[in-house]
Amino acid sequence: MPTISQKGASMPESPIRKLVPYAENAYKLGKTVYHLNIGQPDIKTPQLALDAVKIHSLDILAYTRSEGSEGYRKKIAHYYAKNDIHVSHDDIIVTTGGSEALLFAFGSIMDVDDEVIIPEPFYANYNGFSTASGVKVVPVISKIEDNFALPPIEEFEKLITSKTKAILICNPGNPTGYLYSKEEIKKLAAIVKKHDLFLIADEVYREFVYDGAKHYSILQEKELDDYAIVIDSVSKRYSMCGARIGCLVSKNKDVIKTALKFAQARLSPPTLAQIASEAALETPQSYFDDVIEEYQERRNVLIEELSKIEGVQVGTPKGAFYCIAQLPIKNSDAFAQWLLESFDINGETIMVAPAAGFYSSAGVGLNQIRIAYVLNTNSLKKAVHILKEALKVYKD
Amino acid sequence: MPTISQKGASMPESPIRKLVPYAENAYKLGKTVYHLNIGQPDIKTPQLALDAVKIHSLDILAYTRSEGSEGYRKKIAHYYAKNDIHVSHDDIIVTTGGSEALLFAFGSIMDVDDEVIIPEPFYANYNGFSTASGVKVVPVISKIEDNFALPPIEEFEKLITSKTKAILICNPGNPTGYLYSKEEIKKLAAIVKKHDLFLIADEVYREFVYDGAKHYSILQEKELDDYAIVIDSVSKRYSMCGARIGCLVSKNKDVIKTALKFAQARLSPPTLAQIASEAALETPQSYFDDVIEEYQERRNVLIEELSKIEGVQVGTPKGAFYCIAQLPIKNSDAFAQWLLESFDINGETIMVAPAAGFYSSAGVGLNQIRIAYVLNTNSLKKAVHILKEALKVYKD
Repeated sequence: MPTISQKGASMPESPIRKLVPYAENAYKLGKTVYHLNIGQPDIKTPQLALDAVKIHSLDILAYTRSEGSEGYRKKIAHYYAKNDIHVSHDDIIVTTGGSEALLFAFGSIMDVDDEVIIPEPFYANYNGFSTASGVKVVPVISKIEDNFALPPIEEFEKLITSKTKAILICNPGNPTGYLYSKEEIKKLAAIVKKHDLFLIADEVYREFVYDGAKHYSILQEKELDDYAIVIDSVSKRYSMCGARIGCLVSKNKDVIKTALKFAQARLSPPTLAQIASEAALETPQSYFDDVIEEYQERRNVLIEELSKIEGVQVGTPKGAFYCIAQLPIKNSDAFAQWLLESFDINGETIMVAPAAGFYSSAGVGLNQIRIAYVLNTNSLKKAVHILKEALKVYKD
Repeated sequence: MPTISQKGASMPESPIRKLVPYAENAYKLGKTVYHLNIGQPDIKTPQLALDAVKIHSLDILAYTRSEGSEGYRKKIAHYYAKNDIHVSHDDIIVTTGGSEALLFAFGSIMDVDDEVIIPEPFYANYNGFSTASGVKVVPVISKIEDNFALPPIEEFEKLITSKTKAILICNPGNPTGYLYSKEEIKKLAAIVKKHDLFLIADEVYREFVYDGAKHYSILQEKELDDYAIVIDSVSKRYSMCGARIGCLVSKNKDVIKTALKFAQARLSPPTLAQIASEAALETPQSYFDDVIEEYQERRNVLIEELSKIEGVQVGTPKGAFYCIAQLPIKNSDAFAQWLLESFDINGETIMVAPAAGFYSSAGVGLNQIRIAYVLNTNSLKKAVHILKEALKVYKD
């Protein structure tokens, strides 16, 4: 009998996968489970995006161009221009979600055993894409005490070897909610230029910044034209995760030319979803204003309630819709399972994402969880109350 | 300035990519171009699939499960059962096109530098997926004189090394149109079992078989339960290439478990396209009967007309909608370009796919082209007439 590959064996599982059977069992027992574990927003998709696929007049659902239709790419470039990011539609390749954009970026700039430095905790699937691409993640730890700010640039410098090809950041950060400042981006610009590395920024949460802060894209840093690769997606921006439309953006022509070959091999991004995504670009600012206000309110409630729990440490996210909370426990994997299996208040419990999966350093983040604030404020209050009461009785 | 990877540099370009600017120039000059080069059918998508996305009642375009929704997978299993292929929905992972299914299969069973044996000529993008996955294609030549039948099994045996992990076939074949017989599948079964290899079959053209022949799936071969991995797609079956929905099917639980980890890393296949694809499964048999009749008629016209041209050799495709034609020329790349650039009959010319890109052996297939019969019979007749007249005057 033939066997699977080492690559396949070392592909990481999703951090919450092990918990799914326990959640399903909790449902069976009639429990209500507040999901703090997922990045699927409860926010409605803009109606005009949903309507666009209802009024299509296609009679053949055909391929589009591998790089995405020119019309859509021009509209994306226009969207960026409104955000003070100046790129041509030829700098853009439409991808099947931000996931594929990241795979194309990794394939275009890294060979097997090459290294990418990533501040951790980071989006768990970066581990999966690295394994799939045969490249090595070199983590640099950002700390909850610093609110997950950029680690000192000397820490990056120490990790750079002849195998290092890129630094990858997520801005604003999943799972940290941290928003890098212009000064931090400039520090990163200096180091990638000094060492001839690419700077990849996953900016899918660009619109989700709070307290009047402003997002600064690596594409706004003129000196980075040859170095910057942006990963983007419609998933969170328009609450259309199921579209699976993202893009890769770079002013480096070699990167675009190379990524296009990966895109051609898979022929085309999904056509219906491109129709919805093109329409979504017409979403009025008022939609975002409402959404940002809602998330900011949720964040405020969440952080306020978490701060009241003894022994819980939490930063203040400035963006995205996640936070990392450090709990007075030893092992959040066991705790998360226990919450689903053995704890409830009047039949209600919570599901959280253990944070260890967001680190690639072994043994780090074991006492942390990621909370996604994709529930309304009432549910969030109830959920944090459950967490508080659970911590009172939990023994590990 | 940082540079792209060796992997990126060695990603192959699409065989027709170089011709696109010449085609665009021909349009600008007002020429009509008959496209014999593409696999995008002109057949209409079943209306019920197009309608399904028009009547959706989603208010959030959310992720589905990474392996595809259970409802859709159950219906796919039912479709297979009707085709005498007996699998459970748990043997199926829904993918973003057959392309992604192939990437998941390669990643799940092969490590860097591992080898996959493929009868050539083969679907050009197998080269791209192999490069992206870091694995090596080992070609075994099938011959136009044999109508591209399975090469003698000893030819495979000679190529098997400790690095060989799989044999990959496309059945019916793109670009050959060859349909493997039950006996040929049994020969392949014996060799993969003997050497503990996986047998991957790209069966996306399953429905397109002519002359009353019957497709025999590797999943019908009981002894292959641990060895067989099928790549499938809705793209051609329902003329919905732009959906980007396919699936990977295997009764080998380790393969499914491993492929699922790749699927989880990219979260979800496209949701709207799954809605359309699920509806497409209700397509009545009459749709296929009509389509098969149409393609068979086209094939008959194409082969008959091609056979009339002196010096042209062509097999008789038994399936799919492609054929390889061998021309009395030296270099079909140059010929294809010349057709677009320098030849026309009353302002009409043709675009063909040079066949070299369908081989991984260097220097093979240079005098061959692939013709996709995705045009109506009238257009096909005109197109072959243009080819005939062109060959009379072309000098290489």
